[in-house]
Amino acid sequence: MTIEVCFTPKLFPDILTKENYVVVLADILRATTSICAAFQNGVMEIIPVAGLDEAREMKSKGFLVASEQDGRKLDWADFGNSAFNFTTEAIGGKSLVYCTTNGTRAIEIAKTAEKIAMGAFVNLSALAEWLVKENKNVVILCSGWKNKFCLEDSLFAGALTEKLLNILGFTTCCDSAQASMDLWKVARVDILTYLEKAAHRHRLKKLGLDDVILYSFTTDTTRVVPVYENGVILNQA
Amino acid sequence: MTIEVCFTPKLFPDILTKENYVVVLADILRATTSICAAFQNGVMEIIPVAGLDEAREMKSKGFLVASEQDGRKLDWADFGNSAFNFTTEAIGGKSLVYCTTNGTRAIEIAKTAEKIAMGAFVNLSALAEWLVKENKNVVILCSGWKNKFCLEDSLFAGALTEKLLNILGFTTCCDSAQASMDLWKVARVDILTYLEKAAHRHRLKKLGLDDVILYSFTTDTTRVVPVYENGVILNQA
Repeated sequence: MTIEVCFTPKLFPDILTKENYVVVLADILRATTSICAAFQNGVMEIIPVAGLDEAREMKSKGFLVASEQDGRKLDWADFGNSAFNFTTEAIGGKSLVYCTTNGTRAIEIAKTAEKIAMGAFVNLSALAEWLVKENKNVVILCSGWKNKFCLEDSLFAGALTEKLLNILGFTTCCDSAQASMDLWKVARVDILTYLEKAAHRHRLKKLGLDDVILYSFTTDTTRVVPVYENGVILNQA
Repeated sequence: MTIEVCFTPKLFPDILTKENYVVVLADILRATTSICAAFQNGVMEIIPVAGLDEAREMKSKGFLVASEQDGRKLDWADFGNSAFNFTTEAIGGKSLVYCTTNGTRAIEIAKTAEKIAMGAFVNLSALAEWLVKENKNVVILCSGWKNKFCLEDSLFAGALTEKLLNILGFTTCCDSAQASMDLWKVARVDILTYLEKAAHRHRLKKLGLDDVILYSFTTDTTRVVPVYENGVILNQA
């Protein structure tokens, strides 16, 4: 099986992997990390929507809705997109509609894939094991920031690529995958200091939304593998 | 002045640098390296064209034409795009029409910039000095490979960013620039071994076109600064 890394959704149409693949979506700060947290805390299902109009419509139908723009929770929504919003009390056993700037738009773009798994440092090992069982080519799609490359998603791509290559026998001939692994090797030594370089980390800091940093970069705190298939995200672990 | 790195031409419309900037185009294997070699060997001017039809038309008008597709010289062209094609005997004092898969298409995309400088390891220091004199924001545009990220152009972006930041007082808040510098720090220790990871290096090897590798990654063998302005590339050093 091959591994290919795509640094932003805008480049997804140009991936070389053409068939028999699953997509791993990475939006470390914050959508995919938060979705893992929600499943860890017992959410039943998550329905991602790409547009605010659709999100408001679902709210008016009685759904719990998480929605943000540029990192900030929208007034009418029940939650923003912080992992800490999704407590067992708030979402346990419930359906959640989820709309974020980058994450759910990336899902829209990657919908040609049969399955889209939510990748984060918090579920790294469980995800790798699930990918081995799937036995398909892997495309890691970094959600980036407004079509631009971002460090935190690329570091995750490197961590996952390394795990799959070293332990589980995948191959890659993708320069983005090679670069991601090298960046991860540099960053892993002291990830929190390294992240001071990342532009988005500073955006969150300005917004007072950077309390999730430590949580987001701690590996393997959950065994959930949230997977998008047929319009809904369910835990397939 | 700020530095921003753009990993492929497809992402160029999304750059955050909006005004008062020059673009540095990087197509290390091989267009920008070869263009530097041509000026080093005395070419008078280079006229880049993006399409094969236009290139053939210029050929029929009596111009010398360099043209390749996927690395191979086209039958009817005078040259491919190897730096070693452009000897003083062949191109000294002449006009050259240049059409390549990636490089000249990237020029088309970046034409909104006032000036587009040709960046390569071979002219790294001369280019940095020219950029300081220009006194404008810098966008380093990697030409990549078929819209994908490629290692060799990104390494150059890292080398140039580092040079400008460390010696000459530019700033950056661009994750791509940070990543490029970190990759360059890893690769510079043994660049030829590092390049074994790069997919395009293997494409050239298969085609028997990898004789330019050592030349392409040797820094500062020329003081030329080829710059595209008003439809033509001239040496502005």
